[in-house]
Amino acid sequence: MNLTILGCYAATPRTFTNPTSQVLEISDRLFLIDCGEGTQLQLRKNRIRFTAINQIFISHLHGDHFYGLIGLISTFSLLNRHNSLTIYGPVGIKEVIKLQLKLANSWPQYELKFVELKSKKSEVIFEDKRVIVKTIPLKHRVYTNGFLFVEKPKERKLNVDKVQEYEIETCYFQNIKNGRDITLEDGRVIPNAELSFDPPAPRSYAFCSDTVYTESIIPIIKDVEVLYHETTFLNSEEHLAEKTMHTTAKQAAMIAKKANVKQLVLGHYSTRYESIKAFKKEAEEIFDNVLLGDDGVVFNFK
Amino acid sequence: MNLTILGCYAATPRTFTNPTSQVLEISDRLFLIDCGEGTQLQLRKNRIRFTAINQIFISHLHGDHFYGLIGLISTFSLLNRHNSLTIYGPVGIKEVIKLQLKLANSWPQYELKFVELKSKKSEVIFEDKRVIVKTIPLKHRVYTNGFLFVEKPKERKLNVDKVQEYEIETCYFQNIKNGRDITLEDGRVIPNAELSFDPPAPRSYAFCSDTVYTESIIPIIKDVEVLYHETTFLNSEEHLAEKTMHTTAKQAAMIAKKANVKQLVLGHYSTRYESIKAFKKEAEEIFDNVLLGDDGVVFNFK
Repeated sequence: MNLTILGCYAATPRTFTNPTSQVLEISDRLFLIDCGEGTQLQLRKNRIRFTAINQIFISHLHGDHFYGLIGLISTFSLLNRHNSLTIYGPVGIKEVIKLQLKLANSWPQYELKFVELKSKKSEVIFEDKRVIVKTIPLKHRVYTNGFLFVEKPKERKLNVDKVQEYEIETCYFQNIKNGRDITLEDGRVIPNAELSFDPPAPRSYAFCSDTVYTESIIPIIKDVEVLYHETTFLNSEEHLAEKTMHTTAKQAAMIAKKANVKQLVLGHYSTRYESIKAFKKEAEEIFDNVLLGDDGVVFNFK
Repeated sequence: MNLTILGCYAATPRTFTNPTSQVLEISDRLFLIDCGEGTQLQLRKNRIRFTAINQIFISHLHGDHFYGLIGLISTFSLLNRHNSLTIYGPVGIKEVIKLQLKLANSWPQYELKFVELKSKKSEVIFEDKRVIVKTIPLKHRVYTNGFLFVEKPKERKLNVDKVQEYEIETCYFQNIKNGRDITLEDGRVIPNAELSFDPPAPRSYAFCSDTVYTESIIPIIKDVEVLYHETTFLNSEEHLAEKTMHTTAKQAAMIAKKANVKQLVLGHYSTRYESIKAFKKEAEEIFDNVLLGDDGVVFNFK
C-alpha cells in the first residue's frame, strides 16, 4: 500500500503548493481521492499513469477539492481513453460536470459514470473482489465525506511441510486456503490452523478532509492502519478551526489516538504558516506515529 | 501597450505548457483574456496584480480557455477582493459559474457580473473613457468570439510655441486640444492644425482564438496594430485544421497580410510539434512582422 500526496494545502493553489488530491495504491488498485485545480499536472509530475485511474472519490464540492476534475475528465478524453471512469461525490457533481461538457460540446468517448452521495451514515460505495470503500461522514460547511479503503481478507497460506506430511492431495488445497479443516482417509480431522498460516493482515486507509473535530468518525476508522486527517490549523488558531469547521493538529492526533490507528498522516495545511513542521510537533505531543504529508511525497506502507 | 502570454498551447495543460490565457495592458487598463486551468498560477508567476483585473473576456467554453475561471473567481474571494468583476463570455457561462458557487456554498463578497454574448455580429461589449472592446465573431466548433481592443482617440497636443506667439489665453487651451480653431480678438481665425499636434495614434489589439480560416474577420481587424491569431497546426496538417476548425500558421499570416495589420503574434500551438519555431518560419513566408508567442513572454509594443 502506498500513498502519493499530489497536493495537501488548503484554499488557493500557489506557485509551490497544491490543493487537495492524492493517489492511493492498495491491492493493485489505484484510487484518486479529491481533485483540486492542477491535479492533472501533479499526476504527470508524479508519473501516475492516467489509464490506471478508474475511480475518483470527491469528498466535497469546495473548489480546492474538485476544480481540477472537469479538466482531468476532458484530458482523459483528449488522450483517447477507453475504459470507463466512475466519479463518487456529493449530489450535484453530475450536474456540474455534465453542464460543462454540454457547454463545450465535448462528450467523452469513454463511459463516464457518477455515484452521487447524500447519506449521512457510513455506507459501502465501492466493492470489488479485493477492496471495499466506505464513506466516512464528516462535519464541514457543506456535505462532506471521508473515505475508508479496506482490503478484503486474503486467503490463508498453505503450510507446505504439513500438507506433505499428511499427504493431502492438491484438490483440497483451496479448501485449506479458505480455512476449512481436513478429514484424512483414516478419519482423523486435521484442524486448519495446523495446515495453513494466517494471511497478511488486510491493509486499510482512511481519508478525512475537511472536518471539524468530531468523535463520530471513531467507530468507522477504529484500528485503521493509516489515517490521513486534515490539520488546517495549529492549536493556537483553535477558534478559527471551530469557526471554519476545520481541525487543529492537536485534535487530529486526539482522533488518531482514540481510534487506535497505527499511523497518522497530516495535511490540508492553511497557507498562513511559514513552515508545516509545527503541525508534526504539535501532533506528536498526543500521538507517536505521525507522518507529515507534503506535495509530491510518497509514503510506502510496508 | 503590452501583452503577457500566460499560456498559448492548445488542448491539455502539460508540465511546461499552459492552455490559453493572456493579459493585455492598454491605456492603463489590464484585461484578462481567456482563462484555462492554471491561469491563477500563471498570474502569480508573472506577478500580475490580481486586484488590477476587473474584466475577463472568455472567447468560448472549451476547457482549455475557461476551466481556470471558477478557481480564479474563488481565489479572488478568498483574498477578500472588494472591487466588482465582470465576465464577458458565451451564453451559459453565468449558469456554470453560479452552479459551482452554489454547490460550494461560497458566494463572493464582491460583485460578480456577467455579460453573456450570443450575437453573430461584431458588437461593442465594453467601453469606458479610454478603451472600447468589440467582439470578433469567429468560426469554431462552438460559439466563439475574438476580441478587439481599441484606444479611443486622445486629445491633440498643444503647440506651446504657437500658443504663446498668438498670446492665446489658457481658458482656450482645452478647445484647442479638442481640435477647435481659435478666433483672435482682432478677428483672425487660426486653424487648429497650426496650434496643435496630432495625438499619438490609438493603440489596438485583436485576439483571435480559436477559429478556422475565415476572411469574414478582416473588415473588423483591418489595420489593427497587433493581431494575435491562433495557429494550431502547420500547413502540413491543413486537413486537420479544417476538420477541427483551427488555423495553420500560413493561414494566420494570410489573414494578417490581407487585414494589413502591423504585427502578428502566433499562439495556440498543438502540442504535437517538438518545436514551435516552425510556426514562425511558415508564417514569415507570407507576412514580415511575426512574433512567436510563448508562455511567460511579455511583448512591449512601443
